[in-house]
Amino acid sequence: MKDVAARAGVGLKTVSRVVNEEAGVTPDTVARVQAAIEALGFRRNDSARLLRTRRTSSIGLVLEDLADPFYAPLSRAVEDVARAHGALLFTGSSAEDPRREQELVLAFCARRVDGLIVVPASDDHRYLSPEIEAGVATVFVDRPAGRLDADVVLTDNAGGVRDGVAHLIAHGHRRIGFIGDQPGIHTAAERLRGYREAMAAANLPVSNAWYAMGPTTPERVRASIDAMLSGPEPVTALLAGNNRVTVTAVRVLSGLTRPVALVGFDDFELADLLSPPVTVVAQDAPGLGRTAAQLLFRRLDGMASDAPTRTELPARLIPRGSGEIPPAS
Amino acid sequence: MKDVAARAGVGLKTVSRVVNEEAGVTPDTVARVQAAIEALGFRRNDSARLLRTRRTSSIGLVLEDLADPFYAPLSRAVEDVARAHGALLFTGSSAEDPRREQELVLAFCARRVDGLIVVPASDDHRYLSPEIEAGVATVFVDRPAGRLDADVVLTDNAGGVRDGVAHLIAHGHRRIGFIGDQPGIHTAAERLRGYREAMAAANLPVSNAWYAMGPTTPERVRASIDAMLSGPEPVTALLAGNNRVTVTAVRVLSGLTRPVALVGFDDFELADLLSPPVTVVAQDAPGLGRTAAQLLFRRLDGMASDAPTRTELPARLIPRGSGEIPPAS
Repeated sequence: MKDVAARAGVGLKTVSRVVNEEAGVTPDTVARVQAAIEALGFRRNDSARLLRTRRTSSIGLVLEDLADPFYAPLSRAVEDVARAHGALLFTGSSAEDPRREQELVLAFCARRVDGLIVVPASDDHRYLSPEIEAGVATVFVDRPAGRLDADVVLTDNAGGVRDGVAHLIAHGHRRIGFIGDQPGIHTAAERLRGYREAMAAANLPVSNAWYAMGPTTPERVRASIDAMLSGPEPVTALLAGNNRVTVTAVRVLSGLTRPVALVGFDDFELADLLSPPVTVVAQDAPGLGRTAAQLLFRRLDGMASDAPTRTELPARLIPRGSGEIPPAS
Repeated sequence: MKDVAARAGVGLKTVSRVVNEEAGVTPDTVARVQAAIEALGFRRNDSARLLRTRRTSSIGLVLEDLADPFYAPLSRAVEDVARAHGALLFTGSSAEDPRREQELVLAFCARRVDGLIVVPASDDHRYLSPEIEAGVATVFVDRPAGRLDADVVLTDNAGGVRDGVAHLIAHGHRRIGFIGDQPGIHTAAERLRGYREAMAAANLPVSNAWYAMGPTTPERVRASIDAMLSGPEPVTALLAGNNRVTVTAVRVLSGLTRPVALVGFDDFELADLLSPPVTVVAQDAPGLGRTAAQLLFRRLDGMASDAPTRTELPARLIPRGSGEIPPAS
């Protein structure tokens, strides 16, 4: 707006009047301001919303999968905060596809949402810069934005896994396996870091055969567990990197005669009723959603010029039985 | 529109031109049509959208709880169909509050959604008539609309419970308990009907102490189970009326020494790994969402004048162990 004002030779207020189509500006001045806007390359469309002022009382939530038991309570918490602020919620699943994430985000922006809460699938969010500059408040949750300085609300993933691995070490384990999600996913990389740090802190070596990153399909997870349990140095305990991995790990371990200790990342319903009950490192999924949404509405209420913030919520170890099994040998 | 045309003394096309602000109508005719519209009580606002023609490529989904494991996959299926049709999705949770359902539905209509998919919390949807007449395609799912003739996609709830109760009877049970959701909820009433029908079909009496309807909070469900197991004619088997009830029933029964058979309505993750594995009557939650959304888009594609339809998807009994336990005595 400053550049437009300088180029048109008018004040900021006049530019604002022109873009908001307010009265009190001569046709000649309108033409000059419009020419300056065009010369500077601002397009008057849904995407580059320099021209936008009115609120729509809607926000967009992009997450990985609406049906995932981790994201469902997160969504519900976002909805509750939005409702308290009189805003409606667009939701969409990226399915870990960066292209789909961008499609959804820009479609929400084209609908003129006031703000966005995004669980990133992409590692490059520069495409969002024009939207953010145009005033779309944006908070990332669960994973940080890529190549963009923006608000983010995270779980202390590395810290949570460190606690889980330290717990297994405290129960006598030395050969501990880690099964994570795709290494390109921020939370997966952070959890692997936590695993390495906990092993290093206890002066334990980590064999390349003891950690495996990849899709969380039952087939892949099963194959990884089988490999870790059958090598020359089989693991005696497993840290499952997320709820999808844990569910498959529970299935695989329940079919074995040899007891293998298990700590899962993410809590899940009925974990305490399984045999053995499953020890987990629990994230606060509603807390992530609530914190991100509250921050978003604080931004919409005028904190807009403050520097981006990074909030980390702790994860919590819940011992239930499976993580307290001693090493088999 | 016919009434407006008759009162203004013009053709239907002219009315359409006026409401769509098209050219080719004299100011005098515009005034006459507008006067007729006003005289007939059509308000030009977001709610009574007689005047609306353009599509927004967005649909609204109102369900009971976005975080409920039954509705999460239903939502995801709706989202997938919407995406295939290039439409975005507003979502909202009614929390079983009819007022909140209406608020959400009308807020979505005010955002000019093309269509609505509603899991009803209300038993009176006449408030939606003006929207439907104005062209908002509407499909009810999981439960039918109240006092409104509209498309609906349901599970065969009574049939599913009949199968579950017949299964318990086939395994020797005569005193079978049914724990359902609030009796005002359509699915809860239908499932109770299925229970009664299955008992009647086997010539078994039903004591008033054997069925209990109410909130699905753990406290209420626990109290109901305790009562059914402790009377002069204790039940030997339970039919849990939905996934929330089943989860509590599993907890309560796992704390007893006496074995009680259990069939749960709705499948849930890891049901097969519990001890005993839980026999369920499974609904097809993604199928309900997919079928409803496909019907909605068929309506949007021009089936608009066909009579409302009722689609019932079957439920499926999955025997796993808990439903095959014989009576204790």
